[in-house]
Amino acid sequence: MEEKTGAQVLISADPCFGACDLDVSLLSQVDLLFHFGHSQLEQTDLEKKVFFIETRSKADVGPAVTAALPLLPEKKIGILTTVQHVHQLDTVRRLLENAGKEVILSRGDNRIAYSGQVLGCNFSAARSCENSPDAKKCEAYLFIGSGRFHPIGIALSAQKKVVCADPFLSEAFELDFRKFLMQRSAVIGNSMEANLFGIIVSTKNGQCRKKLAKRLKQKAEEHGKKAVILQMDLVTPDQMLNFSVDAFVNTACPRLAVDDSGRYPVPVLTPQEFEIVLGERCWEDLVLDEILEGERE
Amino acid sequence: MEEKTGAQVLISADPCFGACDLDVSLLSQVDLLFHFGHSQLEQTDLEKKVFFIETRSKADVGPAVTAALPLLPEKKIGILTTVQHVHQLDTVRRLLENAGKEVILSRGDNRIAYSGQVLGCNFSAARSCENSPDAKKCEAYLFIGSGRFHPIGIALSAQKKVVCADPFLSEAFELDFRKFLMQRSAVIGNSMEANLFGIIVSTKNGQCRKKLAKRLKQKAEEHGKKAVILQMDLVTPDQMLNFSVDAFVNTACPRLAVDDSGRYPVPVLTPQEFEIVLGERCWEDLVLDEILEGERE
Repeated sequence: MEEKTGAQVLISADPCFGACDLDVSLLSQVDLLFHFGHSQLEQTDLEKKVFFIETRSKADVGPAVTAALPLLPEKKIGILTTVQHVHQLDTVRRLLENAGKEVILSRGDNRIAYSGQVLGCNFSAARSCENSPDAKKCEAYLFIGSGRFHPIGIALSAQKKVVCADPFLSEAFELDFRKFLMQRSAVIGNSMEANLFGIIVSTKNGQCRKKLAKRLKQKAEEHGKKAVILQMDLVTPDQMLNFSVDAFVNTACPRLAVDDSGRYPVPVLTPQEFEIVLGERCWEDLVLDEILEGERE
Repeated sequence: MEEKTGAQVLISADPCFGACDLDVSLLSQVDLLFHFGHSQLEQTDLEKKVFFIETRSKADVGPAVTAALPLLPEKKIGILTTVQHVHQLDTVRRLLENAGKEVILSRGDNRIAYSGQVLGCNFSAARSCENSPDAKKCEAYLFIGSGRFHPIGIALSAQKKVVCADPFLSEAFELDFRKFLMQRSAVIGNSMEANLFGIIVSTKNGQCRKKLAKRLKQKAEEHGKKAVILQMDLVTPDQMLNFSVDAFVNTACPRLAVDDSGRYPVPVLTPQEFEIVLGERCWEDLVLDEILEGERE
């Protein structure tokens, strides 16, 4: 770029976890920012100077979807994926329709760029299948992608069966989230006696939920508990050691508490799990935390 | 504070390495920021809302200074320390004068809050002893504090003998920096064949030397080498793995390259060491990198 355009290039070398994590500091110094690998979140002033250069996986979804078919006796299937496979959803649809299925492909809220796309913090596309004219018909979901995090979010959010087709392994399996529920229940259980809560707020552009943090602090106080608001950029287990609270409540990236569960010195709760601890939510209503359209503040 | 004043309190939970590392993001949201443990750097607009709450060590300097006396046959002694012992420099002076010494206590540039104070990135107080009316008389330095980093900076910057008195261990020793020179020479040697350099720029308020980075990039190109500017907040060995350069040049905190020398995947040079690599500086003129008054940009 320097050779062809004469423009000065500065490279962002901070870690980056999503479109929620723009290099805001660099952005303030440059005319144009190219952000690689993530699709745009909802448009704000911040994003006006940012070009999102998405990347696509070359992995063929065919074998994984074929492997998924025997696990899907249901007729009406909602299909969901992450941005790197989103260009192959037409292929997925065709394979399912060839097998006699009806396919429901629906788009989530304004944080979501494509029909059928889910984020680690946003499963609104799954719920939007439920709310579509075909609503009552959707009997199961097929998730294209790797890992269990997204499918767990879909299953808890839509309360339906989820089959996962992994294009990298060309394998499929039906999601079983009992281990997840047990793990989160243990974290909630460990927090029932906690008196002092550290409420984590991220400064990252798409993870910053200050109003939620203030509401949670107030809730804690209404229940006779104490809470302090801890603001930070990157959230790592190490830096949590500095704070002698009984438990943390995480309003930053919803994946933090769940993915790194065992690595924190004390329990790290999601806002919904904190409500369970306070007795304001039933254990049965445990869901994954989500950051929805318009929620960043 | 919340109980007594009704003010809302937000706690900064990001790691913090000095007054060079204010929580700028938090600062933009609050009316007043209390920053603990560091003395103020030079005044800028940024610092107007910041109260620096310095902290003082309770360790008694007496035994360490007494242990240092036999190592100091010289008559005129410059005394230097870090901010947590700066309140005990009068005691140090008295002990030395009682032992028949002449004491030189001098203040560095405007990044330095106290006479005799040095920072890990600023040894101007040592040079200022050399430039005082007593200049030629200062024969050796007594450094009060722990570790070898500050005394190495003093020795290389002032080209004089340094005796270290550690108040925590109540011990003293004469600084020997041969190991340091060998280590840094190895890093320089390992970079002689490098063609592509990653020039690290920190966004931290007191570590940001963009103009220096641009000058170094230009220098590299004048010598037929390639260089890219990498901008980041925290500098960690892990994130350096993302960049396949032959060597890094660090314009952020000068301690980074030196303290964590073995932990980086490729050599990390200081700007002065980079000049040696390019043939613009003699090996004999190796000094510790410093960030001086007015140098942040």
